[in-house]
Amino acid sequence: MNRKLYHGACFYPELWDESVLEEDIRMMKETGINVVRIGEFAWSKMEPEEGEIDVGFFVNVIKKLYDNQIETVMCTPTPTPPIWLTHGHPERLHVNEKGETMGHGSRQHVCTNHPYFRERARLITEHIAKEIGGLPGLAGWQLDNEFKCHVTECMCETCKTLWHKWLKERYQSIDRLNEAWGTDIWSETYQRFDQVPQPGLTPFLHNSSLRTMYQLFSMEKIAEFACEQAAVIRSYSDAPITHNSSVMFGVNNEELFRGLDFASFDTYATQENSAAFLFNCDLWRNIKKGRAFWIMETSPSYSASLESYALPHENGYLKAEAVSSYALGGAAFCYWLWRQQRAGSEQPHGAVLSAWGEPDVGYRNVLEVERARKEIENIMLATVPVQAETAVVYSDRAKVLLKTEPHRRLHYRALITEFYERFLSLGIHRDVILEGSPLDGYKLLFTPFIHYLPPEFIEKASAFTENGGIWIAGPLTGGRTEHHTIHTDCGLGDLEKCAGVKTLFTYPMDERNTIGKAFGVKAPLSLWSAVFESGHAEAVGIIEKGAAPGKAFITEHKRGKGKIVMLGSMPAGEAGDIMLKKLISHYAEEAGVTQGTDATPGTIVAPRRGPDGIVWVVVNMDGKGGEVTLPEDGTDLISGERSANRLKLTPYEYRVIQFPK
Amino acid sequence: MNRKLYHGACFYPELWDESVLEEDIRMMKETGINVVRIGEFAWSKMEPEEGEIDVGFFVNVIKKLYDNQIETVMCTPTPTPPIWLTHGHPERLHVNEKGETMGHGSRQHVCTNHPYFRERARLITEHIAKEIGGLPGLAGWQLDNEFKCHVTECMCETCKTLWHKWLKERYQSIDRLNEAWGTDIWSETYQRFDQVPQPGLTPFLHNSSLRTMYQLFSMEKIAEFACEQAAVIRSYSDAPITHNSSVMFGVNNEELFRGLDFASFDTYATQENSAAFLFNCDLWRNIKKGRAFWIMETSPSYSASLESYALPHENGYLKAEAVSSYALGGAAFCYWLWRQQRAGSEQPHGAVLSAWGEPDVGYRNVLEVERARKEIENIMLATVPVQAETAVVYSDRAKVLLKTEPHRRLHYRALITEFYERFLSLGIHRDVILEGSPLDGYKLLFTPFIHYLPPEFIEKASAFTENGGIWIAGPLTGGRTEHHTIHTDCGLGDLEKCAGVKTLFTYPMDERNTIGKAFGVKAPLSLWSAVFESGHAEAVGIIEKGAAPGKAFITEHKRGKGKIVMLGSMPAGEAGDIMLKKLISHYAEEAGVTQGTDATPGTIVAPRRGPDGIVWVVVNMDGKGGEVTLPEDGTDLISGERSANRLKLTPYEYRVIQFPK
Amino acid sequence: MNRKLYHGACFYPELWDESVLEEDIRMMKETGINVVRIGEFAWSKMEPEEGEIDVGFFVNVIKKLYDNQIETVMCTPTPTPPIWLTHGHPERLHVNEKGETMGHGSRQHVCTNHPYFRERARLITEHIAKEIGGLPGLAGWQLDNEFKCHVTECMCETCKTLWHKWLKERYQSIDRLNEAWGTDIWSETYQRFDQVPQPGLTPFLHNSSLRTMYQLFSMEKIAEFACEQAAVIRSYSDAPITHNSSVMFGVNNEELFRGLDFASFDTYATQENSAAFLFNCDLWRNIKKGRAFWIMETSPSYSASLESYALPHENGYLKAEAVSSYALGGAAFCYWLWRQQRAGSEQPHGAVLSAWGEPDVGYRNVLEVERARKEIENIMLATVPVQAETAVVYSDRAKVLLKTEPHRRLHYRALITEFYERFLSLGIHRDVILEGSPLDGYKLLFTPFIHYLPPEFIEKASAFTENGGIWIAGPLTGGRTEHHTIHTDCGLGDLEKCAGVKTLFTYPMDERNTIGKAFGVKAPLSLWSAVFESGHAEAVGIIEKGAAPGKAFITEHKRGKGKIVMLGSMPAGEAGDIMLKKLISHYAEEAGVTQGTDATPGTIVAPRRGPDGIVWVVVNMDGKGGEVTLPEDGTDLISGERSANRLKLTPYEYRVIQFPK
Repeated sequence: MNRKLYHGACFYPELWDESVLEEDIRMMKETGINVVRIGEFAWSKMEPEEGEIDVGFFVNVIKKLYDNQIETVMCTPTPTPPIWLTHGHPERLHVNEKGETMGHGSRQHVCTNHPYFRERARLITEHIAKEIGGLPGLAGWQLDNEFKCHVTECMCETCKTLWHKWLKERYQSIDRLNEAWGTDIWSETYQRFDQVPQPGLTPFLHNSSLRTMYQLFSMEKIAEFACEQAAVIRSYSDAPITHNSSVMFGVNNEELFRGLDFASFDTYATQENSAAFLFNCDLWRNIKKGRAFWIMETSPSYSASLESYALPHENGYLKAEAVSSYALGGAAFCYWLWRQQRAGSEQPHGAVLSAWGEPDVGYRNVLEVERARKEIENIMLATVPVQAETAVVYSDRAKVLLKTEPHRRLHYRALITEFYERFLSLGIHRDVILEGSPLDGYKLLFTPFIHYLPPEFIEKASAFTENGGIWIAGPLTGGRTEHHTIHTDCGLGDLEKCAGVKTLFTYPMDERNTIGKAFGVKAPLSLWSAVFESGHAEAVGIIEKGAAPGKAFITEHKRGKGKIVMLGSMPAGEAGDIMLKKLISHYAEEAGVTQGTDATPGTIVAPRRGPDGIVWVVVNMDGKGGEVTLPEDGTDLISGERSANRLKLTPYEYRVIQFPK
Repeated sequence: MNRKLYHGACFYPELWDESVLEEDIRMMKETGINVVRIGEFAWSKMEPEEGEIDVGFFVNVIKKLYDNQIETVMCTPTPTPPIWLTHGHPERLHVNEKGETMGHGSRQHVCTNHPYFRERARLITEHIAKEIGGLPGLAGWQLDNEFKCHVTECMCETCKTLWHKWLKERYQSIDRLNEAWGTDIWSETYQRFDQVPQPGLTPFLHNSSLRTMYQLFSMEKIAEFACEQAAVIRSYSDAPITHNSSVMFGVNNEELFRGLDFASFDTYATQENSAAFLFNCDLWRNIKKGRAFWIMETSPSYSASLESYALPHENGYLKAEAVSSYALGGAAFCYWLWRQQRAGSEQPHGAVLSAWGEPDVGYRNVLEVERARKEIENIMLATVPVQAETAVVYSDRAKVLLKTEPHRRLHYRALITEFYERFLSLGIHRDVILEGSPLDGYKLLFTPFIHYLPPEFIEKASAFTENGGIWIAGPLTGGRTEHHTIHTDCGLGDLEKCAGVKTLFTYPMDERNTIGKAFGVKAPLSLWSAVFESGHAEAVGIIEKGAAPGKAFITEHKRGKGKIVMLGSMPAGEAGDIMLKKLISHYAEEAGVTQGTDATPGTIVAPRRGPDGIVWVVVNMDGKGGEVTLPEDGTDLISGERSANRLKLTPYEYRVIQFPK
Repeated sequence: MNRKLYHGACFYPELWDESVLEEDIRMMKETGINVVRIGEFAWSKMEPEEGEIDVGFFVNVIKKLYDNQIETVMCTPTPTPPIWLTHGHPERLHVNEKGETMGHGSRQHVCTNHPYFRERARLITEHIAKEIGGLPGLAGWQLDNEFKCHVTECMCETCKTLWHKWLKERYQSIDRLNEAWGTDIWSETYQRFDQVPQPGLTPFLHNSSLRTMYQLFSMEKIAEFACEQAAVIRSYSDAPITHNSSVMFGVNNEELFRGLDFASFDTYATQENSAAFLFNCDLWRNIKKGRAFWIMETSPSYSASLESYALPHENGYLKAEAVSSYALGGAAFCYWLWRQQRAGSEQPHGAVLSAWGEPDVGYRNVLEVERARKEIENIMLATVPVQAETAVVYSDRAKVLLKTEPHRRLHYRALITEFYERFLSLGIHRDVILEGSPLDGYKLLFTPFIHYLPPEFIEKASAFTENGGIWIAGPLTGGRTEHHTIHTDCGLGDLEKCAGVKTLFTYPMDERNTIGKAFGVKAPLSLWSAVFESGHAEAVGIIEKGAAPGKAFITEHKRGKGKIVMLGSMPAGEAGDIMLKKLISHYAEEAGVTQGTDATPGTIVAPRRGPDGIVWVVVNMDGKGGEVTLPEDGTDLISGERSANRLKLTPYEYRVIQFPK
């Protein structure tokens, strides 16, 4: 698909007069927009009356755009079913965990599992695919829009029936479910599958297994819907299919993208949180490995709704985002949205053009992006991102378990992003991978915050250590079973056995009163923790003060040519940050990780490989400028000049350096 | 109506034995209470069984009171329908925005639009009007009590039907509604009016037009109910009709009071927030212009319910409140309540007498008020408030739009009160007026925080500038249409055209990173802002740092003999306060505003005009004492002494100075 | 029952394989566990299908335990009805105050007043009592588990009917209810009992009487259920009956324990809040006076659920808790739980053994408890706690009234615990007693935060003062009637008359602006307060600054040989703390209270009496060590050595000192 670098915008021609379309196309060309995404909310435009489908308007738009060298990603319009689909049919609506039924007027108000919705979704999608699937300007498909961004699990009657079916398929007999979930606690025991409730209102907490399984059920169902829809499209179109997803939504991205063709995501991370932006790039590059990802939506300056807003990016930051995302494996950088909405609940949201058709406040930055895109396009097309030696596992299932069991308001995304940030600040090139990703080529593997590690993963990671890799497991990893219960043979199940340790206790560390020592650093320990008797392993971190003095919280255990390192607790505060970075550096060195730079904080290096050798894309992200030492003399591919030794960047500047083979 | 200054109390004789009534009347006379308000919650006393109405008790009370020179404001008892009106009839009850049905046992639990409620309300009101409308002691009528103080829009089925009817009347065809609201966004498009939902639960935000229109619908309906009730009363009584309203409730006061005879409001502003008290006086004086307003309820010392309380006023403050309100146009200063409730949810609320019939903690202050009232009564009756040269527009519709679109928890009442406070602290005499108020006699006009400015207003304000007035529009003004959408011809619609500017961008200013300069002051800029290319206008305030450096945030544009000044952003922090005050002073001087004093902060001057010339009522509100320079020598109307030059006041002191013609 | 000191654990053999039972018993013996509590959540194990009851499993367990010298407290399993009891029967479920119906899957989801639940509860209890009531190892019974810990008042239809019946019984006629509640306020007036609502959703607050009465109704009903259940058990068993209650739950413990045989409570107070732990010991000793209480549940180290946790106790603290509770009148110190749950929502909760059968992090402390228990057992069995001279009244009805009327988020438990803490820190031995407790033997009586004082109490306390006692009433005491209304004869009703004062005002004190002086200390005054004209009494505390300067906030009045002291307000801040302690010390001295020590803060003395005279159990609770002066030379009963003068304790150390007769 990487025939070009895309610079795109989400586009709603159906909301404006015909004359505006002409003007928009003119301005897009002037701006350098070469792809648009259309149609995701346009169901009522396409099918104003039930059964009267006509997508001629969009066919015409796509053709006109293509006449002007603008390609299109076409969407299925299923996030916003028309009024005729739900009026008078409360049973088709989404029901939240309090049992409240959602109404028409916003988005995602239907139950995506309701058979009538599925049927109508299939019909409209088939019609669109037939009419549009073969158009020359079609760059790809997007299914729906941001699945489960506004709602989580549906509690309607349809879902209840499907839930019982799903449970039956998973557990076969009610006795096995009772046993797996430990329902004899609190006399929860079920006699039949149809008695198992959805996790609605109760006086106190639900069983962990029930809550976790209901989330997994919901995620499977939305992936199933995506698969169904993709199959319909594939009957009529060869264009690749994606979905604009996120780590914030109630989906299992690994499962969802298995059935799709390329990865794309939406991000509205603020400038202060640029680590989240980079985390996304490092993750989505690996979700459909080997195929460039798209940033399908990002704000040209600021996001907003009637009730909230983010502050505008500083001038210069947008370009840094665009270049770093292209360099880290992106094929497209697309704005939400082209022309500011004139109505509805997102009317204050920043856009490329204002509602009155003039350049909006971020426009100058959009032009900067376009200049940069042109400057680097050929280089990007000739190279690919270098696989990292260091991998951090991201798991939406881990997110589910932590949602069921947050201990003290723990939040998976925040935890993993903060953990990830340390690799950034250490200048270590990294991949964020999935549980199912192959581990070939990696030297160092991290699996933090994964309550449940499946046996396949343990086996794979174990083999990885046998072959010389170092696997750092924890914190908060391995202590739960597949059913979200506790192991009864030992504290951390099979992981513990591989790691050569014995888990003595798991308990919440009191960072005010607990001190651990490792790598020459003393630091407070925090979070729900596991404490070890090192056994066959070597104690690397020892608790000096607290409820279990003298016991180990970090151990390492040789396996084959590699090692398993258990990180039982979370070092906290400034000293903890230092300890964690020492741990990372220590094992990176031991594992022979070579992909490191000394880039100053706020400046990143994205290494790529091409026929002429390694290329570094260096970008200053924090607006303060930065520096990095070059490993050898190189050529600045933009200026053509020679670059040697220490490279200096001005605020938000990017440089592309080619090193000789 | 201004035959006297009223000093009153809300009175609930129906809750006490007959013997208590005698004692109450004795104490009222001793205290100086010359008016009471009765009956607003007494429906079950008047009509204990459905259809068995008897208001003899109240007739008797009114007569007895009048025998003792105490007048009465009689209420309709509709805020608390008896149990027989709702028991077994959930369809008559108020439904909130979550779809929850309210029950009997508190107040405002019925849907005021339900036809059966309307019918019973009409009958009881007619009966009362007949029996009481001609009694000699009747000073006036109050409809209901604090409309929409506990509830906002009702979501019941009755309201749904009326909503559809209202929409049909407003928009004629569903196509026009769809077009006006931009419902093609998110496929909200309606096929028929009966499909348009009430703004209940949805996964994300409702369309802005829907939410704003539903609020306006609700406000119209409550004004309609008031009108209906007033018409019933007028068939039997000549006494003037009011309602005890507030800027805090879900009503459009401009619309509501159009159908009533005089203005009254309730205020429980704490002493710290005396600006809110004064704001109210300056506003309600203009709601029924030329006719004195009533403070129908205020606390003699502190307000309280079972779950909250305000702290008692300092001794002395009550008198300052009373005198300033009389001076600013009040005819009555009435307490809630005469005798502390012995039961119910307001039993802890402070009163003139305790539940056991003794003077309550605020009683000494009530006596001070009475002394003051007597001292100033003749002066007040002989003079009227001077119209201000400076007007600030208050708009309940603006409140609605800001509720729909609060950006970041913006709150209209807090914004406008804080804006208003600057006129107070600058010593500028001001009127707070309504959108529909005439602008005759004003020199300086402010319209802050009014998302939608109707064309009639723009026309009127435009004419005002032609005639020499200066109109300062903004911040947050003019950027939305009648339907709560964005203009598509230019950023601020017709306002922009009048102002001779071009709106480049509207976006949220980041006060941490944005600096504007105007009137020689540099200040951070904040809030949702509009940035201008000055065009025909002159740039007066320039952005020095931020997303749009070099662009204007304040412009001025000559029109005829006057000017339109655009204030596109909100200067923030201490420097912003200084900038805003400089702006006000600058244009006040330019407009020839003369009504200024140098009163020290916390001391106010209320100018009045009478046959003998100008009278200043000077009041220290903050308990710290204060000073003001007199424009010329005057006579202290209370002491009879000559006052010259600098007038000094002790804490909470008031002075009344007559200047020669 | 005090044949031994119990060291126990809550035990769930039904959740584990048979083999685990053997291992558990072995470990219990090794650990020193001599009693277990079982069965409270095991209904589905006992009656897996409706009507098929079999408790053979538990009979077997109890026998096996007893074979190993471990006694059992058997529970009725009613907190967690099986799925068959509620599936398809929403009318049997608990409905909360928002009208939301709770579902199966957690605990306390049924309405305990539903006749079908009552019937099934009776049947299962009868079956258990028959089978288990005569077993030799049976130490006692526990009814249900933590009544009303997760839910408060039920709002279901069953409860509505019972509520009407209850009201009819209490008030006889609807007129009397209307009069008592003052329902003519807000036209709440009821025509018939069946119209009186449950306190569900309303636009504003409910009538105080309604809310208070509904809570009392709910508390009576749960006590009634307990009584019913106890009666069933008593038909088959002589073992004493208790319930594991708490001051945190929606029960009236005084009423509840009237029908039970011994007192027990659960506590998870954190180490920082050891005052709450001691408060409980001082209270529950007096709930079934003369009979030792049980701590039925406490955490061996930390408590936790899926969504929260407490931090682990410091090593050493558990022993201090155990010893102090035995010394203060406890017969048993039991953990929740023996073996960590492998599943469900409490799986992270700390236990004696982990889910994989190993000693958990608190195990070393459990062993310390067992060593201490053995050391002190004979001494404890030979002595009993000394009754205090000072009593503080705890009232669950006061809790109810303060819940209805919290003024500003006041919280009864927090208020009373903080008040109690001052006695601790002054080293005064104290009893926490109930409203109905006899006052014989006391010299000093405190009744703070009791809005309503019943006439029987006033009479009893009055007689107590006649006989020489000093009664300090207040703050927040006496101002409400039985029906939660205000007195109309005087501010504090009969209390006021006894106290020889006249209440001038009641109002909220503003601690920023109010200063009171008493006992030579000036301090801010706070909380809802009563201000007095001293009348026959003597003004002891005078308001120096505030709304009522010169008036009294503390008065004392001689009655017979004693005094009534009115404390009208709450001294605040550090100075207030000093004032309050001076007040306590002053009246303690005047009353001739002799039971004082100079123990350093964090160290407590529990005096006991035996055949050989007085024994002091001295315990350091705060881990900082401490000291106390001995009144005379004594013998250390553990070491056998002589102890004289100043006793010093190391962190968490305890000492037992025998003084000669």
